[in-house]
Amino acid sequence: MDIDGLDEEFITTDPDVLEAYRFDQAGLCPAGKPVALARPRHTDEVVRILAYAHEHRVPVVPQGARTGLSGGANAVDGAILLSLERMNRILAIDEVNHTATVQPGVVNSVLSAAVAEKNLFYPPDPGSWESSTIGGNVATNAGGLCCVKYGVTSDFVRALEVVLADGRVLRTGTATAKGVAGYDLARLFTGSEGTLGVITEVTLALRPAAEKPLTAIGFFPSPASACTAVTEYLSTGARPSILEFMDKVSVDAVSAYRDLGFPPDVGAVLIAQSDRGPHQAAADLEAFADAARACGATEVIVATDQAESDLLIEARRLVGVAMERLGERLVDDVCVPRSRLAELIEGVAAISAEYDVLIPCAGHAGDGNIHPNVAFDRADPDSVRRGQAAFDAIMDLGLRLGGTITGEHGVGTLKRSWLETELGEVGVSVHQAVKRAFDPHGILNPGKVVR
Amino acid sequence: MDIDGLDEEFITTDPDVLEAYRFDQAGLCPAGKPVALARPRHTDEVVRILAYAHEHRVPVVPQGARTGLSGGANAVDGAILLSLERMNRILAIDEVNHTATVQPGVVNSVLSAAVAEKNLFYPPDPGSWESSTIGGNVATNAGGLCCVKYGVTSDFVRALEVVLADGRVLRTGTATAKGVAGYDLARLFTGSEGTLGVITEVTLALRPAAEKPLTAIGFFPSPASACTAVTEYLSTGARPSILEFMDKVSVDAVSAYRDLGFPPDVGAVLIAQSDRGPHQAAADLEAFADAARACGATEVIVATDQAESDLLIEARRLVGVAMERLGERLVDDVCVPRSRLAELIEGVAAISAEYDVLIPCAGHAGDGNIHPNVAFDRADPDSVRRGQAAFDAIMDLGLRLGGTITGEHGVGTLKRSWLETELGEVGVSVHQAVKRAFDPHGILNPGKVVR
Repeated sequence: MDIDGLDEEFITTDPDVLEAYRFDQAGLCPAGKPVALARPRHTDEVVRILAYAHEHRVPVVPQGARTGLSGGANAVDGAILLSLERMNRILAIDEVNHTATVQPGVVNSVLSAAVAEKNLFYPPDPGSWESSTIGGNVATNAGGLCCVKYGVTSDFVRALEVVLADGRVLRTGTATAKGVAGYDLARLFTGSEGTLGVITEVTLALRPAAEKPLTAIGFFPSPASACTAVTEYLSTGARPSILEFMDKVSVDAVSAYRDLGFPPDVGAVLIAQSDRGPHQAAADLEAFADAARACGATEVIVATDQAESDLLIEARRLVGVAMERLGERLVDDVCVPRSRLAELIEGVAAISAEYDVLIPCAGHAGDGNIHPNVAFDRADPDSVRRGQAAFDAIMDLGLRLGGTITGEHGVGTLKRSWLETELGEVGVSVHQAVKRAFDPHGILNPGKVVR
Repeated sequence: MDIDGLDEEFITTDPDVLEAYRFDQAGLCPAGKPVALARPRHTDEVVRILAYAHEHRVPVVPQGARTGLSGGANAVDGAILLSLERMNRILAIDEVNHTATVQPGVVNSVLSAAVAEKNLFYPPDPGSWESSTIGGNVATNAGGLCCVKYGVTSDFVRALEVVLADGRVLRTGTATAKGVAGYDLARLFTGSEGTLGVITEVTLALRPAAEKPLTAIGFFPSPASACTAVTEYLSTGARPSILEFMDKVSVDAVSAYRDLGFPPDVGAVLIAQSDRGPHQAAADLEAFADAARACGATEVIVATDQAESDLLIEARRLVGVAMERLGERLVDDVCVPRSRLAELIEGVAAISAEYDVLIPCAGHAGDGNIHPNVAFDRADPDSVRRGQAAFDAIMDLGLRLGGTITGEHGVGTLKRSWLETELGEVGVSVHQAVKRAFDPHGILNPGKVVR
């Protein structure tokens, strides 16, 4: 690998290192054999890598922290893996205009902490927020718990620097609060999973710091009653900062991992949070409790202090960790209109029974975005087959309920064929035309998202 | 004009009618001679028009209510004008999922009223809201007074039906709260000014109804003191639902049109609104008053009731009407980081003096988005020349202050050459590639936005 001006510090072909960078965290996604790993520190190094790749028609796979769940960062044969992890500087935090400009390798939680010191707030908080990078968050348009009130990553992307497939540098979007000068390319790159360009700088909108949140938990006899409480509560005009769902299997998995003191025989749980200041938050959670009880909640507990509040959120965040202990998993990410949430969760239970696989459901109830975690045993081909079939059946169900196959995890390779189903023939054709416009030789993350 | 299956009710070549549809409301923008006006009622009629245009390589100019200020809806030579005004049905308002699905010809205020009846809220409120259509609002990514708290039109666009340049129908986006299945084409069409496709259906996110707002007005000795109050007030973490600026020339123009009882010799005015309920709104406006006084405001008046509150907003909305009485105008729409707002407004005053033209400034101070209204006399070539020069100088100033040439009005033909300056060579090239991907024969609104 002889890329002009890049010394060995930036490009390695060491097989052990390459192996460590071949995969993201998706289950059952194949990865090819890369030829090199590049870890640039500056945009001009990214330019040189892309210019080389363009000239020699070498595939390039951009990578953040490889915490993705769809195989979007997995290697393809013959590719240069382009990790942005060393481009990890916070370039500016503008306290007057409430923006931050960062390199793509800045870890989400590092940025969140840095802006919090200045009494500002960067809401997007994917489950991976302590390890995933802003570049990866933008490339996948990551969500999180906050979305029900604050929106997703793309709602905070103002401007991008992107290295194009041929090595040219595009600056697009504007740091200003509004801007309609030309096509919204910043939004187009956001969520494009490295297939249209390599993001090398991000300007994000920030918000003033929220008040310390208060949290409540409601225990329900069934998922259906919890889902009804979601729509009833939100119909009151409530704007919770978090509104999360866990089914019985999730609660049991978390309880087995760490005793949370939850009552036995819980059918489902909702966790609600308000960050509107102590007085208003107490009123908000009282309204949540009213809606929950009216829908059959057997018990609603409002946290009395910050520590108790944090513990409830921790219970939700532990689902992923607790599931990892149960073996391998395929994580679905369907999002449906929230009026269809009960049908989705009941449908997943039926799929779990039909295919004889464990599928705990937890997720962002307020958005209708649920993560059924399909558990399987990689050593057992039949378990793999049933797990894959259940995973597919859930996406089919999501589409039939008027939803989408992915609310926040992205397509990668894991859901590419399902994406074609969701988009339809015209949609696929337009996607391919856009891909060709940005990457006519197909060197950017080939095989991901679109063919 | 013989388009298969479309009778004369939908296609007219009557010269008087065509003349009435040749222009939007931009000043000094040329318009070509169209060959026909189509006013379809259904998507399949739009399909037939586009299929015909595609086959015969006839330009098509999509039009909403032609309230735009950039010439984006102006006719081009030989074009079919495609007015969506008859596709004006509200198809659904979903009270559980807080969405509305509408045809593009629905007038903004009609939708706003319809959703308000169901205790829901569609925030985007461009100055033209009582006549402009949702389709036009989406095509231009319209803003308004609400943006400082609620964002712009694109923040509410969930899904679109679009007829492509060759007559195929694309459904893109998802009605769900979140979705990352493929590229964000809904956002790409939003603000593309009819150059990438014809929007025939829109699914919009709604919000729960806001509380009745309270409004305050602050009178300042100078624009600079008002601008400082904007940044100081927003630095407190305040989230006003409106934060508007009017300079002395605007106040004088409005006062000449309707006596508002404002004190004499006002240097500048800020109007702030909070819609967080009577108790919280009173506290919010007290905080505004504190910030305003600390920055030199000579007087701050908080409206004591809804009527007084409405009157203050009316004062701001009257700027356009009052300006029209002063003659013709070119409306700038620069948006800068709000920390640079004072420099922008002072710079506009200097430009006004240099070119000897009247340029009242009013606009969305909280967003840094200001509308300098360059007044000119069409009958006086020198006045036109000076007005055009001042208009250009303001965009140049906006760019030098780290801003954009257009915050919400769009590019059309009026700002096309300036768009090239803002985007730069790589940006223009990428825009052209995107345009070609969607419209390889260049029949959709040719000459607008990109060459």
